[in-house]
Amino acid sequence: MSASPLAPPSDPGALTPAEARALLHSGLDVPTAGWSTGFAQANLIALPREAAFDFLLFAQRNPKPCPVLEVLEPGEFHGGILGADSDVRTDAPSYRVWRDGELAEETTDAREHWTEDMVAFLIGCSFTFEHPLLAAGVPVRHIAAGRNVPMYRTSVQCRPAGRFSGRQVVSMRAIPAAQVADAVRISSRYPSVHGAPVHVGDPAALGIADLDNPDFGDPPVVDDGDVPVFWACGVTPQSMVMESSPPLAITHSPGKMIITDAPDTMYQVP
Amino acid sequence: MSASPLAPPSDPGALTPAEARALLHSGLDVPTAGWSTGFAQANLIALPREAAFDFLLFAQRNPKPCPVLEVLEPGEFHGGILGADSDVRTDAPSYRVWRDGELAEETTDAREHWTEDMVAFLIGCSFTFEHPLLAAGVPVRHIAAGRNVPMYRTSVQCRPAGRFSGRQVVSMRAIPAAQVADAVRISSRYPSVHGAPVHVGDPAALGIADLDNPDFGDPPVVDDGDVPVFWACGVTPQSMVMESSPPLAITHSPGKMIITDAPDTMYQVP
Repeated sequence: MSASPLAPPSDPGALTPAEARALLHSGLDVPTAGWSTGFAQANLIALPREAAFDFLLFAQRNPKPCPVLEVLEPGEFHGGILGADSDVRTDAPSYRVWRDGELAEETTDAREHWTEDMVAFLIGCSFTFEHPLLAAGVPVRHIAAGRNVPMYRTSVQCRPAGRFSGRQVVSMRAIPAAQVADAVRISSRYPSVHGAPVHVGDPAALGIADLDNPDFGDPPVVDDGDVPVFWACGVTPQSMVMESSPPLAITHSPGKMIITDAPDTMYQVP
Repeated sequence: MSASPLAPPSDPGALTPAEARALLHSGLDVPTAGWSTGFAQANLIALPREAAFDFLLFAQRNPKPCPVLEVLEPGEFHGGILGADSDVRTDAPSYRVWRDGELAEETTDAREHWTEDMVAFLIGCSFTFEHPLLAAGVPVRHIAAGRNVPMYRTSVQCRPAGRFSGRQVVSMRAIPAAQVADAVRISSRYPSVHGAPVHVGDPAALGIADLDNPDFGDPPVVDDGDVPVFWACGVTPQSMVMESSPPLAITHSPGKMIITDAPDTMYQVP
């Protein structure tokens, strides 16, 4: 990824979703963790209409990594939890265009690759429970360090659906041992954005050989006494694309999300 | 509905799911509230493959009435949360066969109407949180009275998807005023089986003219000091069928559910 020519905002958390999207429409290419505090961010995968049922079924069968927040009508660019100013083809800081399971291009503007019958799926993002974690005094080290969250492709296979299969991707947050229970308790109140962790502790049990070398995002910050805690991640559809090789798929770039108009509290239970 | 020639079990709550299904396979036609305590029951709608995406999208857009627990492969009769002994075409006590939006037949055996590419969707059922309600001392009056739960077709329109639209159906439980908060708190921990109520109080605000005259199930039992509490209901797909008139749909009969192998606790958050 080339460095963005645009300067990031000094206080991205204070931006309204519409303000954030306006900046991102202009081509700013940075991770969005901590942006527009209190509003849900979403992972994106867009597929041609003929593949849409299989993917919706894949998501339904793998609700931890693929909680569906919104599905736009074929060919539509906004609606539902997206603002009227949204264009799902330019809302994300950066997109990945996949052809036959290979990363063909990374771009800040997906419009030229978008075919007429593309169906856009918005998938919940764990950024949504980071604000409640911080509010409860649980440190979120990648935000404090101004980094992207580290993400790993695990050895855990998702449940297949139709033509789609793939290994689960997880995000990792290093949590002080005394606060792991708080992190579980708080995140479990947000099942629509990955909910409770899928794994606490040993990375090797998930097939992660080197915690310092994530498959997506930035290397982690781990303090003494921290425990690695893993949450299912909305980059899983990209792992699915790599394994299932559909002719065309367009996703966001990991950590560079679609910012929605939906308040985080909409996804909180109980 | 004709009276069943078979005697209902004396303690249906003690039956394992497989035992319950065996009884129901033999043609017993009774409501299943209180059966196989601790195991999730499910609403059913089956549609031909070509309508499956639109319905899955309808469910995704209306997660309160249509939380999807399982989708079987086209033409499959068991799998996922259903036991190996299951046959989704005979597991329910009774089925409704819908042609062009009209109720064409009610039958204890749906096999002769099942076409080769039917896709069966299992939708969460509020019976799942009735056991936790009872465990917390909240009375569930229709179970105590040995009746089916009362269900009503409201004036509230679901969010449409493709060819499908319809008004939301709700189930009602009359709850003592001092325990309404408990009922909200406990049911909200089960978002996959309708979660928190959609309405507390005035039935007229939902377009329900006469609480004693439900559209499905049995008339309610309401004690002095009870408040009517309404939960989104998995009979909503039948309301959708009535309004959208697909050529063929097969559903369970309201209150006469598919009994799954999934423990209720699987659906509890946090």
